[in-house]
Amino acid sequence: MPVRPTLTPALLRAGHASRSFSSAGGALRMASAAKPFHPDEPSVPVLKTPIPGLKAAAAIEQLNRVFDTRSINMMADYTQSVGNYLADPDGNMLLDVYAQIASIPVGYNNPALRKAAQTPEMVDAIINRPALGNFPSHTWAGILESGVLKVAPRGLSNVYTAMAGSDANELAYKAAFMYKRQQERGGPDVEFTTHEMESVMNNQSPGSAQLSILSFKSSFHGRLFGCLSTTRSKAIHKLDIPAFDWPQATFPQLKYPLDQHEAENAQAEQDSLDEVEHLLKTWHLPPAAVVVEPIQSEGGDNHASPAFFQKLRALTRKHNVLLIADEVQTGVGATGKFWAHEHWNLEDPPDMVTFSKKAQAAGYYYSSTDLRPNKPYRQFNTWMGDPSKALLFRAIIDEIHRLDLVNHTARVGQYLYEQLEGLARAHPEHFQNLRGKGQGTFIAFDNPKRDAFLAKAKQFGVNIGGSGAQAVRLRPMLTFQEHHVDILIGALEKVAKAL
Amino acid sequence: MPVRPTLTPALLRAGHASRSFSSAGGALRMASAAKPFHPDEPSVPVLKTPIPGLKAAAAIEQLNRVFDTRSINMMADYTQSVGNYLADPDGNMLLDVYAQIASIPVGYNNPALRKAAQTPEMVDAIINRPALGNFPSHTWAGILESGVLKVAPRGLSNVYTAMAGSDANELAYKAAFMYKRQQERGGPDVEFTTHEMESVMNNQSPGSAQLSILSFKSSFHGRLFGCLSTTRSKAIHKLDIPAFDWPQATFPQLKYPLDQHEAENAQAEQDSLDEVEHLLKTWHLPPAAVVVEPIQSEGGDNHASPAFFQKLRALTRKHNVLLIADEVQTGVGATGKFWAHEHWNLEDPPDMVTFSKKAQAAGYYYSSTDLRPNKPYRQFNTWMGDPSKALLFRAIIDEIHRLDLVNHTARVGQYLYEQLEGLARAHPEHFQNLRGKGQGTFIAFDNPKRDAFLAKAKQFGVNIGGSGAQAVRLRPMLTFQEHHVDILIGALEKVAKAL
Repeated sequence: MPVRPTLTPALLRAGHASRSFSSAGGALRMASAAKPFHPDEPSVPVLKTPIPGLKAAAAIEQLNRVFDTRSINMMADYTQSVGNYLADPDGNMLLDVYAQIASIPVGYNNPALRKAAQTPEMVDAIINRPALGNFPSHTWAGILESGVLKVAPRGLSNVYTAMAGSDANELAYKAAFMYKRQQERGGPDVEFTTHEMESVMNNQSPGSAQLSILSFKSSFHGRLFGCLSTTRSKAIHKLDIPAFDWPQATFPQLKYPLDQHEAENAQAEQDSLDEVEHLLKTWHLPPAAVVVEPIQSEGGDNHASPAFFQKLRALTRKHNVLLIADEVQTGVGATGKFWAHEHWNLEDPPDMVTFSKKAQAAGYYYSSTDLRPNKPYRQFNTWMGDPSKALLFRAIIDEIHRLDLVNHTARVGQYLYEQLEGLARAHPEHFQNLRGKGQGTFIAFDNPKRDAFLAKAKQFGVNIGGSGAQAVRLRPMLTFQEHHVDILIGALEKVAKAL
Repeated sequence: MPVRPTLTPALLRAGHASRSFSSAGGALRMASAAKPFHPDEPSVPVLKTPIPGLKAAAAIEQLNRVFDTRSINMMADYTQSVGNYLADPDGNMLLDVYAQIASIPVGYNNPALRKAAQTPEMVDAIINRPALGNFPSHTWAGILESGVLKVAPRGLSNVYTAMAGSDANELAYKAAFMYKRQQERGGPDVEFTTHEMESVMNNQSPGSAQLSILSFKSSFHGRLFGCLSTTRSKAIHKLDIPAFDWPQATFPQLKYPLDQHEAENAQAEQDSLDEVEHLLKTWHLPPAAVVVEPIQSEGGDNHASPAFFQKLRALTRKHNVLLIADEVQTGVGATGKFWAHEHWNLEDPPDMVTFSKKAQAAGYYYSSTDLRPNKPYRQFNTWMGDPSKALLFRAIIDEIHRLDLVNHTARVGQYLYEQLEGLARAHPEHFQNLRGKGQGTFIAFDNPKRDAFLAKAKQFGVNIGGSGAQAVRLRPMLTFQEHHVDILIGALEKVAKAL
């Protein structure tokens, strides 16, 4: 069980000292008084008890009897949560810039999503879940076209739906392996050999491909066996799980501020690309694809320049290897583009883009029907996605368009970044390596006492997540506004002073 | 695109020759006139057009532009489907004994599920999907206790929720690997070594375990990279995908009728067990677990006796290896027990039981908190299941209990089996190796012209699936009743005569 914080006068006061949160913004440029997207939100965080309070602690104890609760951050009450505010059973309401590990797109209890969840279409999708590969609904094409495909990345007009980010990645890897082997075999019409058909039943080559996926150090692509072999974030994610002997290249480790380290950063990127090329040419299991996050998220919010990604794309073309952009965390608007890889300005788009989290649905977009395996039932499973999640994604997309949330997030992100720059000047030791400029609200900084920083933030009314070894990552929802920035900045300043 | 059947007079007649379906039961023992569970069902299948008709063909063409449609069996209209009847856009209504690859539990558009899908709880779960490991809802324990845990297999009081059958299996495998390595390491309190922590980041041992999962030939455990390495159903499921070098034992290939092959079948089972023991003792990557389906489903509906499973459990105990029962297809009532492994009468239950499909939710039950990894975040992902599916499973469980559907399925299965025995006597070449006696409606038989058999069945108003190379598998819903049996038997007889 989490350690129960002592009930201090400061904490008790916090619930009543609401103004202090926003007045901290007094020293800051005042945000424009934009119309709130969520009029029912509290104007400031509400702290009634330490977290966890008595009710939360009881709920954790009850849950622990049947479910592993050791990773609990906070027991939540979603019925009372609203917009950017996460409620708990004791009546606390925290400004939430973690958003269920970056997976809540348009606020808790969003009325538009509530409406979508109550439509006959949604009810039908929930109670009559189809095996989409065998018995799709006659409405499935329309649901895809009016939703998930409406936001398809440029050049990627097909989609294969999945359940979550990790299986979306694995399915993309499978498509890559089948495509590569098909090329080696001589095209889609060349039949499998008897040797292939027999050896694969023993998990041996040539039926089982002796190929790999190249990923980057400190990347995160999920935790199933295939994607975990490409995940290189933390040992605890991987220990004791068998893994494929697949290659990893160093991801550029940029220095900040960027404008003071241009030459070294360019060199770091070139070194990384050289390593990628070396591995593509020499690894004993040849890579069928390179998988990369536009911003390494779980691994500590590591960025690279558009030039890096452009050259990476060129390298994959040169060596006839597919490029998979893993947009599970970066996709759906938070970077100020709908897809983060739009920042790369590629002429030649990635071959596949995977998505989940804020989409609530999941899957991969792909560029060409050549990437459809040459026979049916090769990329197949019982459900192949979930129409109820596709309907939800459609409602999310509609809400994003209605409120112009991608452009909004670009603007708010700029404001947030400027405020953080101010904090970093005042408290450089607490806001190190500030990064994410021009990337919407997808912003992070390092703090040497990161875990204490995050715990303390809760006491000042803000729920924040970490990533990597010492990054504080901001992952607010798309409806995060300037007045939320002010509250957040006020709380961060208090944390810095209190640590 | 599927071949469009020619519009024949026989097909056109079929839509009007309703009585012929049920009157085929005239030669059979009449079913008791039980109260129908789905009063809105048609009394017999409705065939208005060939399948696919014009509307279905147009919908397939539309879908094919954006989604791989080559595995389409039939375009469906779920809004018009009811109970055991699957509708299509042309107004055809087929008696469905395939049920979305065995995943529809209590009928299309079941009113009780409809009600559950419209509750405020469900709406909340859909629009506020939590990261269950970090921010569970205060209602989560109650949802588990009143649902998924209410039907926990005897001796397995914990659950880890997942998204679908394949990831449920992978998570169980991960738990097995962590458990096994913990034992080797000397217990939960022994820390990882630096060598382990470092090597695992390169996907190398000792951090990456040099262990395996033992599965059986012709088994199916899903198609993600880890579970696909244990799947041994068909080459097309596995070709070109890298696989772990894990061991497989021969599953007993029983001969039918069982009472005429007792000695050889017992020998086949003993041979299989001997092979398992040999592999457990000698495989170069020692197995951490044995995974087995109570009835191999995708692999062709292969059964083994309770004695086989009892001895298998004993073998795993003897060699300190975990036993995972994969109940993804067999679970949730269709075998006349809630869990098929209840037929084994084990004193010592399996260590883990995985579930999905008819549960709509997914996950694994486990026997002991010792199987919880020794640290948090080792078995973790963003969503860790889906409360909306857990709520749906709860409603399914309530419906199963309200209608006593497990006992019902045992009874109807017995009636169905007897009718099939009659057909097999009359048409032995079409109903070979009838199997599943005493296993509820989980019944199959072989037909040398299986694919033609299934196609023809549609023309007589019945949707049936296949498995393995030549099995016709019956996977009706739990609300399949005696009067449906009569319609099914009538159609099967017509198919046999027409082939």
